[in-house]
Amino acid sequence: MTQISAFADQLVAQRYRDPAPTPAPEWNPVLQVLHEHRSIRRYLADPVPDAILRLLVSAAQSAPTSSNLQAWSVIAVRDPERKARLATLAGDQDHIRQAPVLLVWTADLARLRALAAERGAPLDGADYLESSYVAFLDAALAAQNAATAAESLGLGTVYIGAIRNNPEQVAAELSLPPGVFAVVGLVVGTPDPSEDARVKPRLPQAAVLHEETYDTTGLGAHLAEYESRIAAFYAEQNLEHSWIDRVLTRLGSAAALKGRDRLRDQLAAQGFPLR
Amino acid sequence: MTQISAFADQLVAQRYRDPAPTPAPEWNPVLQVLHEHRSIRRYLADPVPDAILRLLVSAAQSAPTSSNLQAWSVIAVRDPERKARLATLAGDQDHIRQAPVLLVWTADLARLRALAAERGAPLDGADYLESSYVAFLDAALAAQNAATAAESLGLGTVYIGAIRNNPEQVAAELSLPPGVFAVVGLVVGTPDPSEDARVKPRLPQAAVLHEETYDTTGLGAHLAEYESRIAAFYAEQNLEHSWIDRVLTRLGSAAALKGRDRLRDQLAAQGFPLR
Repeated sequence: MTQISAFADQLVAQRYRDPAPTPAPEWNPVLQVLHEHRSIRRYLADPVPDAILRLLVSAAQSAPTSSNLQAWSVIAVRDPERKARLATLAGDQDHIRQAPVLLVWTADLARLRALAAERGAPLDGADYLESSYVAFLDAALAAQNAATAAESLGLGTVYIGAIRNNPEQVAAELSLPPGVFAVVGLVVGTPDPSEDARVKPRLPQAAVLHEETYDTTGLGAHLAEYESRIAAFYAEQNLEHSWIDRVLTRLGSAAALKGRDRLRDQLAAQGFPLR
Repeated sequence: MTQISAFADQLVAQRYRDPAPTPAPEWNPVLQVLHEHRSIRRYLADPVPDAILRLLVSAAQSAPTSSNLQAWSVIAVRDPERKARLATLAGDQDHIRQAPVLLVWTADLARLRALAAERGAPLDGADYLESSYVAFLDAALAAQNAATAAESLGLGTVYIGAIRNNPEQVAAELSLPPGVFAVVGLVVGTPDPSEDARVKPRLPQAAVLHEETYDTTGLGAHLAEYESRIAAFYAEQNLEHSWIDRVLTRLGSAAALKGRDRLRDQLAAQGFPLR
């Protein structure tokens, strides 16, 4: 038990690179898989068997969904040519080409709209901004369950937000009807052991966890601490990065959004009027 | 191994109530916790210790986050009076009052805005609709990891989307600054064993998993199948519900959104201009 507990403490400490971490009071294989998450950006070509894919999707469908609307769908892309075209559309990320499968998680109001049309019932609520968030959140919870399931099976994953860089072309490639929008991609495959992917440290917990009310006490110190902890993480990979510079660049301008500054119009064109 | 596998098949079958389920090829404690998820709506008063709360948050911070922006924060509300006021604002759900803690997951662009302001750097990208989705998605992935972690420890959870019914009052109650918006609540506590909470069946997998491109073949049959499977689930609880009627009511009108039809203006007021 002491040994397990020491291991747990080490895994939690690794997430923060905190020299004085809080001990983990309990531990189990689920906490371990969650804490050991790292994004994988180099894959072997080994296929993901159908039966495993179905298990990832049953895990995804086990996630909570707002009012049981289940306002999401997932497209499993394994055809190498389609996957390569999607890679090009999504920031030209080569790991999408390498890995055997790209799961495209979509917000899906089309299924519910079809039901309403069949019954001649109104579905005015679906036109609101709120319903787009509901569908995006549903898709995210499902995707995260699939990612956790995949990692529990020794598979690697990485999310692809850049699937939103070119929504019209992605919708055409995947034959998405109006009311279906590609929210995020998830690459799944066998990690290439040559990558040495590491657990990326996160902000000190005190910067994100607030007790009772939102509180910015000490925020400056937490951010400075993080800037130095993550610099050490990058240095291990012979990179000289500043987290602060990176986030300020990432959100610095409309151009830095790489096409996603047009998202409102693109969603409207895809059947999400966002009233 | 055969015994484990039979148990796994049973858990997957339970998720769909499919009389002819696909066998699960592999199984582990993570898949089990994910597949056994059920929402808990009756809680004992037992507190969630601080150390456990911190472990849920380190699991949450282990979730992927877009470009490592970490554009979320969580407020842990344990004060009974504040929790009761939030319960009233969020659809008057009594389980929020019963359970020892309500975690309010927020989209948080305020932390990055503060960094930009300190450096005199622009952060124009944060003003776009896209960045609100990034922050909502970040919050959702984090929350889902916390939910999975909680359930692995035998705790119960239920999401509270109704935290978006009255965003102005929720923001005031939690002292949320501009740039921080309450996305979703998560109740955490010890399940009251008197509840008999069951695994809710989901749509047949063929209705949500698409191969290569979006495909509605057989959708009508899948939906009819589901309507009868979930009717059986409700009947066990002496309820006579139609899933189709419920979803059509839930999204039938602006009024059915319970205030969330005003979300666009409320987000703007809270510092999310959604350009």
